[in-house]
Amino acid sequence: MPLQKPLKIAVVGATGAVGSVALKLLEARKHPADRVVALASARSDGKKLPYLNREITVHESRPDMFEGVDVAFVSVSATVSKLLQPEITKRGALMIDDGSAFRMRADVPLVVPEINGADIEWHRGIISIPNCTTTPLAMVLDALRRVSPVKRVTVATYQAVSGTGAAAQAELIEQSKDVLGGRPARPAVYPHQIAFNVLPQVDDFEADGYTKEEHKMVNETRKILHEPDLPLSATCVRVPVQISHSEAVQVEFERAVSPDEAREALAGYVGISVVDDPARRVYPMPHQAAGRDDVFVGRIRKDLSHPNGLALWFSCDNLRKGAALNALQILDEAVRRGSLKPTGQ
Amino acid sequence: MPLQKPLKIAVVGATGAVGSVALKLLEARKHPADRVVALASARSDGKKLPYLNREITVHESRPDMFEGVDVAFVSVSATVSKLLQPEITKRGALMIDDGSAFRMRADVPLVVPEINGADIEWHRGIISIPNCTTTPLAMVLDALRRVSPVKRVTVATYQAVSGTGAAAQAELIEQSKDVLGGRPARPAVYPHQIAFNVLPQVDDFEADGYTKEEHKMVNETRKILHEPDLPLSATCVRVPVQISHSEAVQVEFERAVSPDEAREALAGYVGISVVDDPARRVYPMPHQAAGRDDVFVGRIRKDLSHPNGLALWFSCDNLRKGAALNALQILDEAVRRGSLKPTGQ
Repeated sequence: MPLQKPLKIAVVGATGAVGSVALKLLEARKHPADRVVALASARSDGKKLPYLNREITVHESRPDMFEGVDVAFVSVSATVSKLLQPEITKRGALMIDDGSAFRMRADVPLVVPEINGADIEWHRGIISIPNCTTTPLAMVLDALRRVSPVKRVTVATYQAVSGTGAAAQAELIEQSKDVLGGRPARPAVYPHQIAFNVLPQVDDFEADGYTKEEHKMVNETRKILHEPDLPLSATCVRVPVQISHSEAVQVEFERAVSPDEAREALAGYVGISVVDDPARRVYPMPHQAAGRDDVFVGRIRKDLSHPNGLALWFSCDNLRKGAALNALQILDEAVRRGSLKPTGQ
Repeated sequence: MPLQKPLKIAVVGATGAVGSVALKLLEARKHPADRVVALASARSDGKKLPYLNREITVHESRPDMFEGVDVAFVSVSATVSKLLQPEITKRGALMIDDGSAFRMRADVPLVVPEINGADIEWHRGIISIPNCTTTPLAMVLDALRRVSPVKRVTVATYQAVSGTGAAAQAELIEQSKDVLGGRPARPAVYPHQIAFNVLPQVDDFEADGYTKEEHKMVNETRKILHEPDLPLSATCVRVPVQISHSEAVQVEFERAVSPDEAREALAGYVGISVVDDPARRVYPMPHQAAGRDDVFVGRIRKDLSHPNGLALWFSCDNLRKGAALNALQILDEAVRRGSLKPTGQ
């Protein structure tokens, strides 16, 4: 086999919460610096970022920056994603998009490789990454439906501020200092104080009283699992945590499923770790999941309110498996399947 | 009517999170200082507390301190509650207990006056206050079952540290300062870091994988509502918030209930305020509920996963309606019903 040149990878949103983690993950793989293109808004143009004992320079995301790029990881606003997409596609690069812009489009695969890696094969230039609350939930449901078909899911989330971005992380720190110092908190990124408070709002509201985030969880989970009618309802809540989303989940199955059956199915699933020893106060927590790759699942028990129900709890690093790590895994899977270029090209 | 001397009220646990609020509420009613007996552990003996522009002295909870007392509000550990109870009862005082020691005893009414005030009439010296997560949930369910019978309830909580007590409140502050200062958090009250983290554990675990807190919610809600078989399942989670518990709730009814029907029933219920204007980012939050009396309910919407389901969210001050305020309201109701003394005495 001829020695291949490493792929040229653009990270768009390189100074953001997800982009920084994507760069860290590339660095950990020793992906050569001259095959990394760090892109961001004009404000960050010329900024230097440490990378493998040297520096890489951030450039503004201009169309010509995608010349010669094989893959672009894009983690910016939906508006900017949509503007950049034709420029990326026409230069022949695969766009792996972290935003909500393309996820529900019929011609765009929405992929968690452990679940629906095969969907990568029909991409037409864009592959979307699910929302960071959706990915771990879909993985847990995929593991559990191997035991018995899932009939209904309800979920309440505990979402970290890094899901909003780096500015929200700074806001939580500043507000916490202000409140501890006896000064009023000054909300800017969020509509209300987030320090020492919880907000039952993630993303904007829609007419039916649900937020876009809650609808994303429903629609994206159905698409990834290829279960277009799966009954699912979510309450998405922001909590004063920096990294890792947690979710309290109730699942109803076609038949009664024991906690042990569920535990076995979850433990045998790539990308899931069972952390479930309550007697020793061992259970998943955002603090412990941060910086790690797996979905950590625990508190697995019978749902006392339904004969075929289970209740469980998980935490997952929203920047890693919830975003940047999933993007890299999609790339690996595309390479493995020979699907870097769109079908028919 | 003859002018009656105000009741002599003992507050046991007067220096704790709930006891302090009980004293504040008595102060707000201008209950005379010489009719208030502030009791606590030996450590606080002799401590002075401000009260109505003067001071009251805290005494150790010795049995003789209950001489002449009409009512004792007790908010201490279950162990201490059980030790004090015979001393309080034999001196003829009504014990209104905030702990879990007596709540499920068949001869002890467990009361939220808005729901089951009539149960006060059969007390035999002890009336229990429900757990601070149970009271607001039971009120919401009581309002909603007037529209249609409730068939199943699932709930995930977001509980403030003051539910644990004053030491936990101090721990959240200290840990937050440590983390912001780049120092490691030092857990003492909780088994794990609570600052910038969430803990899927409230109270100890039982053999079935549920915590005692989660069982309390099930058993106490059933007892208060007189619905011994109500299917209910809870996940109780501690969040880094000082005051007010929040809950994400899914309710299934006998028939389809519209959000408007639910809103009307909740708005018409004494002690509940509907705060539900998502388009204007108006919804209940712990930060806004703290220091206020009502249960604040919002995010009322169809449960997308069940034809007869509703989803909603509420916040409630766990020290007020969740504890001290409910205790005072039980006292008022006992006086109104002429039930200060046990039946048969």
